[in-house]
Amino acid sequence: MPATLNELASRFGCRVQGDGATVVSRVATLASAGKDAISFLANPLYRVELATTRAGAVILDAAAGKDSPVPSLICDNPYARFAEIATYLHPAPPPAAGIHRDASVAADAVVAASAEIGPRAVIGARSRIGERAVIGAGAVVGADVVVGADTRLAPLVSLRDSVTVGQRCIIHPGVVVGADGFGFAQDRGRWIKVPQLGSVVIGDDVEIGANTTIDRGTIENTVIEDGVKLDNLVQIAHNVRVGAHTVMAAMSGAAGSTRIGQRCMVGGGVVMVGHLTICDDVMFTFRSVVTQSVAEPGTYGGSLPAEEASKWRRSAARFRQLDAMHRRLRELEERLQEVEGKKSGHD
Amino acid sequence: MPATLNELASRFGCRVQGDGATVVSRVATLASAGKDAISFLANPLYRVELATTRAGAVILDAAAGKDSPVPSLICDNPYARFAEIATYLHPAPPPAAGIHRDASVAADAVVAASAEIGPRAVIGARSRIGERAVIGAGAVVGADVVVGADTRLAPLVSLRDSVTVGQRCIIHPGVVVGADGFGFAQDRGRWIKVPQLGSVVIGDDVEIGANTTIDRGTIENTVIEDGVKLDNLVQIAHNVRVGAHTVMAAMSGAAGSTRIGQRCMVGGGVVMVGHLTICDDVMFTFRSVVTQSVAEPGTYGGSLPAEEASKWRRSAARFRQLDAMHRRLRELEERLQEVEGKKSGHD
Amino acid sequence: MPATLNELASRFGCRVQGDGATVVSRVATLASAGKDAISFLANPLYRVELATTRAGAVILDAAAGKDSPVPSLICDNPYARFAEIATYLHPAPPPAAGIHRDASVAADAVVAASAEIGPRAVIGARSRIGERAVIGAGAVVGADVVVGADTRLAPLVSLRDSVTVGQRCIIHPGVVVGADGFGFAQDRGRWIKVPQLGSVVIGDDVEIGANTTIDRGTIENTVIEDGVKLDNLVQIAHNVRVGAHTVMAAMSGAAGSTRIGQRCMVGGGVVMVGHLTICDDVMFTFRSVVTQSVAEPGTYGGSLPAEEASKWRRSAARFRQLDAMHRRLRELEERLQEVEGKKSGHD
Repeated sequence: MPATLNELASRFGCRVQGDGATVVSRVATLASAGKDAISFLANPLYRVELATTRAGAVILDAAAGKDSPVPSLICDNPYARFAEIATYLHPAPPPAAGIHRDASVAADAVVAASAEIGPRAVIGARSRIGERAVIGAGAVVGADVVVGADTRLAPLVSLRDSVTVGQRCIIHPGVVVGADGFGFAQDRGRWIKVPQLGSVVIGDDVEIGANTTIDRGTIENTVIEDGVKLDNLVQIAHNVRVGAHTVMAAMSGAAGSTRIGQRCMVGGGVVMVGHLTICDDVMFTFRSVVTQSVAEPGTYGGSLPAEEASKWRRSAARFRQLDAMHRRLRELEERLQEVEGKKSGHD
Repeated sequence: MPATLNELASRFGCRVQGDGATVVSRVATLASAGKDAISFLANPLYRVELATTRAGAVILDAAAGKDSPVPSLICDNPYARFAEIATYLHPAPPPAAGIHRDASVAADAVVAASAEIGPRAVIGARSRIGERAVIGAGAVVGADVVVGADTRLAPLVSLRDSVTVGQRCIIHPGVVVGADGFGFAQDRGRWIKVPQLGSVVIGDDVEIGANTTIDRGTIENTVIEDGVKLDNLVQIAHNVRVGAHTVMAAMSGAAGSTRIGQRCMVGGGVVMVGHLTICDDVMFTFRSVVTQSVAEPGTYGGSLPAEEASKWRRSAARFRQLDAMHRRLRELEERLQEVEGKKSGHD
Repeated sequence: MPATLNELASRFGCRVQGDGATVVSRVATLASAGKDAISFLANPLYRVELATTRAGAVILDAAAGKDSPVPSLICDNPYARFAEIATYLHPAPPPAAGIHRDASVAADAVVAASAEIGPRAVIGARSRIGERAVIGAGAVVGADVVVGADTRLAPLVSLRDSVTVGQRCIIHPGVVVGADGFGFAQDRGRWIKVPQLGSVVIGDDVEIGANTTIDRGTIENTVIEDGVKLDNLVQIAHNVRVGAHTVMAAMSGAAGSTRIGQRCMVGGGVVMVGHLTICDDVMFTFRSVVTQSVAEPGTYGGSLPAEEASKWRRSAARFRQLDAMHRRLRELEERLQEVEGKKSGHD
């Protein structure tokens, strides 16, 4: 879908530098772009590629714009404008309205006429599928589920009974929403299942990555608020609440009943134990283990970076001796104080 | 399914305090329960909510019972009794016996008349599905598989050829049982696949969380014993044995040929290297890395909790200097001893 | 499929020790093998089982061969030869050529006559399925996908639009290839989706474990080179490149744009942050966190092994004091130098 720079500038709030009649029809990287493509510069790492780019145009900020050898769109947040322009130039295909002849839709399910139900998809009793929603091939939607307008379920997604998904969500393949939470009561060496009677409520504009799992609540609901983005292989346990516009990178997870605030950024592989409260605007760095509630916005860390193995082994061995080292340190302090005292006596 | 406290007490071994004719029909939390609901108090954290609850009744122990403002069921293990009573009041719907017209069942598969085969499910050659078993929508059962009575496979579960699952198991969506173990022989910079010729045997009363993977054995079987509970996104490698009534929380895993004892509790994100033997009654805390066999029951740990990032960075930097710090400590000890010796000589 | 030792020796480059006319028809462990089975000895741990084996034959190296009580195949790499012989004795069943009547294949998809399309599988528009390829039950192949000859997709695999898979690959259940990468631009507290316009290209002889996820590139492709082996629940983010013959064990992952070299060995649970370059022939040990590029082949580590919990807690507490300990150490050194100086003055 080709567009001129003038059109893109007015639509997305940029300033044109150079020939505003330049036409671009797709996006590309600085290094690979040809005349028909628009590229962007947001990460200073790639600044060296600007001088030699053969892109038709570039999106960048005013400072970098001075060095741009090609027509440019100048703005404060080039990556955000790039995201919007890329979506505009490469629109997702609209839903192919209708129910595929190989889908299985319950007689009392309500499917909007503009929705697309793919081959082999299954829609359970009393579920409601909104306008322009897409249910991918082989996806299984249980009973009493609500899928909002413009939401897209990829193939092989599973939504269990009573789950609610808002509007404009994107749910990738293999995602499981609403499986039972992991709740068992110990009783004389055995485990008695605690029935998981709550459900999952997902807000609007949520994206959920491939093979991520979100369990239903025990009595009340697990809640994913508006604008949350979850990456692949994330685990959200029962009764968790993830606050609006929080992002969680791949392989992160939150154990039961933890509440995560709004606009948090959870790095890859970060895990949180259960029953925590994390306030708004917290960032956890890659692979942290969160064992206590956080009441102050800010950045929290904790993982130890890999080193050459023999060096690592020495540090790891000393780690096991840390308490002994601490004792030796204290003993040294006492002995030295004694020595100093005696010396002072001497002097 | 409403019941009186008298009926529940006699069925589940509790003592009634207050009006035994009180009728309850569902479970709820202390904070949200109304007159028709029974709640419970097991975690002292929630004791403050007891005084103001509007529940019809509460399940709790004798000590807490004294403070209960409503009719109560008194017992030693309120959470276990709650689990049973919740299951009784909210029974899972019985299987809808029969094979859905959109299922694909091999001609020589044997499906019990009382079993439910969902839409789009696939049952392979010679497989046997037990009485009252449920095969969810889109689940794929390979050839020569055995699914025991009263076992429920959720939608989109995959059981590969020759897998055996016992009775009363619950397997959540996306679970893969019996995929090939990760076995390759190195040969001049390439990897030769070692065929995985064993299978997986799962006992009775096992529950397996969403998107968990259990690989088939190389020559012999991978074994999950009775009563094991696995959470979501757990990885069980080939030839592993998980002992009866062991629980493994989300994102934990065991590498090849490790044997885990009975009644172990494996925290979220815990991983074990291969070829270990873990005895019965071991608990591993959240995110531990298990690299050695454990021969003594008890609790084992190891993860470092996240801290405010600048504090963490200082500790992490010092960690890399631990061996040097140890050397400096030893040197100090020697020098101080020298000083003390000389001083002694002085005195 | 029975064979004599003479036949196996000539086919797989071994030397026969003992009766070359011995016939074996299956593989088994040293401990469980009967007369009809061939076993192997590669791990010295199992050497004790050699003396008492009742196997029909054993594969081992020349040193161990001296102690073999049964006819033997002598070679340099017994595990690799075992892998080949096991594959020979237990061949995978050939594809059942044809499209199952319960599959949904787009009218303009091109499926080789020798390929097998399982029940409930879905093949999208313009996709091409190679000779003898197998598309498992319920697998969903998008539009414009290429699946090479002899590649096998297990049930419930999802390949999104435009993904390319080479020849002789094995993809296990639940794998998702080509879902959107996790790309969002922050803009005034919200996240704007960056469309993921690249795809995924997978080479020949690649194996991908159950429920592993490989995201499509943002603009260019995510690439998995020839001979790569990925275990279960692995995460490969957008724009990553995994070099030829690299193996990654379960629950490992690489964040966006990281490039992993050839013949690397990535242990279970290892994670790499984004934008790294890892050279060829690097090994990362179990559960390492990789935060920096690696330019030297070798072994890199870092995880701290679990200990008895009270010991661990002491070390972990001291870890938080490491910077303070370091300060105290430096102070001691200064004070002791002072003492030593004064003493020298005295002497």
